[in-house]
Amino acid sequence: MPTAPVHRFASDNNAGVHPVVLDAIARANTGHATAYGDDEWTLRANGLFDELFGRPVDTFMVWGGTGANVLALATMLSPAGAVVCTDSSHINVDETGAPERVLGAKLIDVPHRNGKLVPEQIEEFAHFRGVMHHVQPSVVSITQSTEWGTLYSADEIAAICDTAHRLGMKVHLDGARIANATVALGGTAAALRSFTVDAGVDVVSFGGAKNGMMHGEAVVYLDRSLSSSAQYVRKQVTQLPSKVRYISAQFIALLEDDLWLANARHANDMAQVLHRAVCDIPGVRLAGPPAVNSLYPALPPALIEPLRDWSFFYDWDVHHHQVRWMTAWDTTPADVDAFAQGVRHFSDAL
Amino acid sequence: MPTAPVHRFASDNNAGVHPVVLDAIARANTGHATAYGDDEWTLRANGLFDELFGRPVDTFMVWGGTGANVLALATMLSPAGAVVCTDSSHINVDETGAPERVLGAKLIDVPHRNGKLVPEQIEEFAHFRGVMHHVQPSVVSITQSTEWGTLYSADEIAAICDTAHRLGMKVHLDGARIANATVALGGTAAALRSFTVDAGVDVVSFGGAKNGMMHGEAVVYLDRSLSSSAQYVRKQVTQLPSKVRYISAQFIALLEDDLWLANARHANDMAQVLHRAVCDIPGVRLAGPPAVNSLYPALPPALIEPLRDWSFFYDWDVHHHQVRWMTAWDTTPADVDAFAQGVRHFSDAL
Amino acid sequence: MPTAPVHRFASDNNAGVHPVVLDAIARANTGHATAYGDDEWTLRANGLFDELFGRPVDTFMVWGGTGANVLALATMLSPAGAVVCTDSSHINVDETGAPERVLGAKLIDVPHRNGKLVPEQIEEFAHFRGVMHHVQPSVVSITQSTEWGTLYSADEIAAICDTAHRLGMKVHLDGARIANATVALGGTAAALRSFTVDAGVDVVSFGGAKNGMMHGEAVVYLDRSLSSSAQYVRKQVTQLPSKVRYISAQFIALLEDDLWLANARHANDMAQVLHRAVCDIPGVRLAGPPAVNSLYPALPPALIEPLRDWSFFYDWDVHHHQVRWMTAWDTTPADVDAFAQGVRHFSDAL
Amino acid sequence: MPTAPVHRFASDNNAGVHPVVLDAIARANTGHATAYGDDEWTLRANGLFDELFGRPVDTFMVWGGTGANVLALATMLSPAGAVVCTDSSHINVDETGAPERVLGAKLIDVPHRNGKLVPEQIEEFAHFRGVMHHVQPSVVSITQSTEWGTLYSADEIAAICDTAHRLGMKVHLDGARIANATVALGGTAAALRSFTVDAGVDVVSFGGAKNGMMHGEAVVYLDRSLSSSAQYVRKQVTQLPSKVRYISAQFIALLEDDLWLANARHANDMAQVLHRAVCDIPGVRLAGPPAVNSLYPALPPALIEPLRDWSFFYDWDVHHHQVRWMTAWDTTPADVDAFAQGVRHFSDAL
Repeated sequence: MPTAPVHRFASDNNAGVHPVVLDAIARANTGHATAYGDDEWTLRANGLFDELFGRPVDTFMVWGGTGANVLALATMLSPAGAVVCTDSSHINVDETGAPERVLGAKLIDVPHRNGKLVPEQIEEFAHFRGVMHHVQPSVVSITQSTEWGTLYSADEIAAICDTAHRLGMKVHLDGARIANATVALGGTAAALRSFTVDAGVDVVSFGGAKNGMMHGEAVVYLDRSLSSSAQYVRKQVTQLPSKVRYISAQFIALLEDDLWLANARHANDMAQVLHRAVCDIPGVRLAGPPAVNSLYPALPPALIEPLRDWSFFYDWDVHHHQVRWMTAWDTTPADVDAFAQGVRHFSDAL
Repeated sequence: MPTAPVHRFASDNNAGVHPVVLDAIARANTGHATAYGDDEWTLRANGLFDELFGRPVDTFMVWGGTGANVLALATMLSPAGAVVCTDSSHINVDETGAPERVLGAKLIDVPHRNGKLVPEQIEEFAHFRGVMHHVQPSVVSITQSTEWGTLYSADEIAAICDTAHRLGMKVHLDGARIANATVALGGTAAALRSFTVDAGVDVVSFGGAKNGMMHGEAVVYLDRSLSSSAQYVRKQVTQLPSKVRYISAQFIALLEDDLWLANARHANDMAQVLHRAVCDIPGVRLAGPPAVNSLYPALPPALIEPLRDWSFFYDWDVHHHQVRWMTAWDTTPADVDAFAQGVRHFSDAL
Repeated sequence: MPTAPVHRFASDNNAGVHPVVLDAIARANTGHATAYGDDEWTLRANGLFDELFGRPVDTFMVWGGTGANVLALATMLSPAGAVVCTDSSHINVDETGAPERVLGAKLIDVPHRNGKLVPEQIEEFAHFRGVMHHVQPSVVSITQSTEWGTLYSADEIAAICDTAHRLGMKVHLDGARIANATVALGGTAAALRSFTVDAGVDVVSFGGAKNGMMHGEAVVYLDRSLSSSAQYVRKQVTQLPSKVRYISAQFIALLEDDLWLANARHANDMAQVLHRAVCDIPGVRLAGPPAVNSLYPALPPALIEPLRDWSFFYDWDVHHHQVRWMTAWDTTPADVDAFAQGVRHFSDAL
Repeated sequence: MPTAPVHRFASDNNAGVHPVVLDAIARANTGHATAYGDDEWTLRANGLFDELFGRPVDTFMVWGGTGANVLALATMLSPAGAVVCTDSSHINVDETGAPERVLGAKLIDVPHRNGKLVPEQIEEFAHFRGVMHHVQPSVVSITQSTEWGTLYSADEIAAICDTAHRLGMKVHLDGARIANATVALGGTAAALRSFTVDAGVDVVSFGGAKNGMMHGEAVVYLDRSLSSSAQYVRKQVTQLPSKVRYISAQFIALLEDDLWLANARHANDMAQVLHRAVCDIPGVRLAGPPAVNSLYPALPPALIEPLRDWSFFYDWDVHHHQVRWMTAWDTTPADVDAFAQGVRHFSDAL
């Protein structure tokens, strides 16, 4: 049996903390600082988000990704409002119903098309508006990059925002892997802005933990008119960290010197390498090269468990025997080699 | 004007991370680990909680204190159930209504008596049981040490548990400062057990962040029959950390070699020193020496703002001009001296 | 043993339907009508509410009193908002936590003073505003007439509204027995307006079922800016009746020819008669003559159960052995005589 | 222009109250009765439900259909539980998100197949069980007859119940039109039992208002172990009527002498007549004869508004220009003739 990779391909949140980020945490550990965000690190991190988006934005640090999404949506929903999202979205299938429980709101999930939704799927519910028996479509939530490793172009997001806004709705972008998307779409602040603030997105969940941080995400209000109650709602949905400085310090480390892009670029690159290494293994059915940092191979059912026991990864579509292999900021070429050898080994053994 | 203390007296969550804890985080940063708690650090931390309580318990790491309380209560409440707590409890006044929002349940707040509640206050609502127009008292939540820096004796908690259980209710203990309480009541695992598992407490929110950790609390089910749905509910209330190992590693650092007790003992001791240093300053009205790590002086109204501007602290009872001064694991005698000098200075200046 | 009264003194919702109201239901039973309120009866009833309040108001029929309160509050609360009310208010103790469950919001209950709250009790929470750890006081809810059978004067309500509005809060009036209050305060539309629209109340739960209707309450938005989402929220909180015409027809019967006042006047008068008949019975401790249609005698504990077994009534303060005796639109002098004889009989038998 | 029908085809809840039911209401109007269900009519109605289902069941009267569904589901859901239902189900599309708001739970909506779901669609979510990131499938909710006027056979429901129970789930049947279904499946109590209690259904929302009642539905617990908290939860979700007797009296009128079946039989028969009268009108695209009391014709878009202006009806699938024409207990052959003439008239005019 081949030796398993040192860094496996289960998830980018299985990776550790980037040393620069860890060092930033240690450097923030200097005596007392006011809790709950009134500290110099948070002030600095907030300023970096302003710079990143090229305008004053309102930024709120939170504990985790589900919490970020819930806070964002809680402040965006109108009364009796509903969220339109894809059926494969994280909020719909991977948050154990947190949105429904904490928001008390319906998610209207539409069939994803390669992980994405299109404006027509928002229009479908336009006739709900003004009808007292129906929830009122209020927010569109999209994920960039998507849960299927795909990307919206800036134009596609702009079209979604146009449709949503025309119908009186707001647009939330779940950016758990926004860095990977930014790299894939140009790798600059301008690229980021093209599919967020320039496209008309109202609120972004800006991910940290999947890109080299230990913990922490940021809810960034590009439309600042939506943030007026966010400080209260953040605490009410259990997402106000006490020692916020340790999250803010991590974001500073990521955003200064573009470490967030470097980390994501590396992960994306490694996914390309992985794709090349496994795409011709018999039984591994794959789409073309990945857009970001994950592959979704359909595998022979008998291959899955032995391979997973050897080096852990997640199912993605159990009904089609599709799994997910994901790279991270710390994946090495040696990891890819080792993993590809393992896939070949267990495949040959079938 | 005197020099402000290096470590101020605002809150123990203004303190930094204890170096041993920070070191443990760094040592946990070794490559990949399965997210969401299926890792060696969490296994070890869970084991340490079993040892600490002297029996197998079910432990769930969460992000923060409000989240810990909400998760605990969510799994303890019966249908149409309500939580009996004091009017000064953190869940009642300092969580922005998170319990009501996330639980959809009423808190029945009874007037605190020196920060505490007594069994008779539970009995008062016994007549609600079985009446369809009233919420059904289902959980008693107490805080140890309390929000007013006081302590329940083990016997007092046992009496509360007896009453609660006799009425079909469960008992939750908010232990945001459980270490400070444990030190004050004997400073041993036996002391901890005397007022928790031996007294009949069902579920404990076991605090970390106020005692030298960076982030993380543990919900500990002493009554394991209550934990069957906790893994789902934890995620549903947005309290499932992804990289749990970094929380678990901190708890390991605290619990091994009794650092949790040493930290709390130091904080408690410093509060004694602070009490002695300020108790005779004119205008500072104080109760006797503190039980744990905080003082609640009533101050001349005109003293409060100048003093706070000089070295920050929180109001505690605005209607009686009472504030809170709190020590932490890193408070030094020099901090106490500096602060006492400042109080005297601003008091003299009135 | 004396013969029990034909109409007992348990509650005005134990009474039947007034014959004029029942007749109105029968007359509304003419073929098909659009469901959900787009019918001629509802149009007419809405117009009568406009006339009653002397201005255009927005009226929404709902099923019941708890539902009316929940709908009103749901549309009035701001994010992370809380409701200030008395500890004896119906929403606080007699709705099984429906507000907390359906609103996800905290009720801040203040000690009632003879069933009422005073502006100072609202001011107490002014310091919560703008503090992220506290719920944001958002609505004051008062009951007129109160759960203890007392009345706010128009001036008292105006003072509450002034304080609330100054603090950015809205005022809800639970008018389950608003007719009894109106009669007691003058018995005219002008009297009603004096303590509602003229005093600054924003939204009223206007009761029907306790005043001769079979079912149905109306949520009346005096501040119409608050009603924009009410049609959706009404359905969402399960309070949209399908065959609304049968509720509206009842309100028409009540409001036309002032039957609502006649019914309440009779009930109030009967309570006066009852007070005179029982106030000198040994052991029956009573306050002075009732303001509206209920008495709250403190009784010898041993008297309560035999008397209740003979003719049912409710406990009101179990800790002080206080019960409630309530008259209704159909109470007769003979009922009062019979009941007073019974009280005397069981009292003598102690 | 032809004369519009006296009784239109908008909905069975546009119909009035059956005279026998109205008479029962009037006869129940005899003085005082204990509110909230402790009255002789409710005792009798509960007994009739026991007889109807052939075993002791636990019955709770509620205000309306949405409320019935919400109460049923609230008492059936496990922690972090979700409801599997069709995308066309009333709970999913016609209750303005009441289930999500009041339950805080996710509805997993699967594509309906002719209005129905099949056991395989439940199995699809079996892999969610035990996974902390997913809601826990907990209840299957089906509607009989369905929102598309179709029927499950008793065997189909039994198969659903078998699958659900095998997966640890409960089965709720939304019986807003259970009478129409019962008639179509045999028209006897035995027929009713065959697709409910005998098939393994756990809880039924038993409709009244669409079958000749004025208001009121019953939540019937066939699995009585699920009803222990129903009395509290009913009030908590705002669905406890005060004067329950007037609902119970209506159910007595329906259930005694099988008026519920006679009413539904008439409505079903009229739908057959309507189908024959309109099925050959050019442009009216219809499936075969209706199973119960509604037709879902696809119409030329230009026909819809003129026809609706003449005699009101609802859209059913706006994207396919499908509308719903529904008969009721009071529809007459003359109504059908008039309506068919109108359809023909407006169709010819295109």
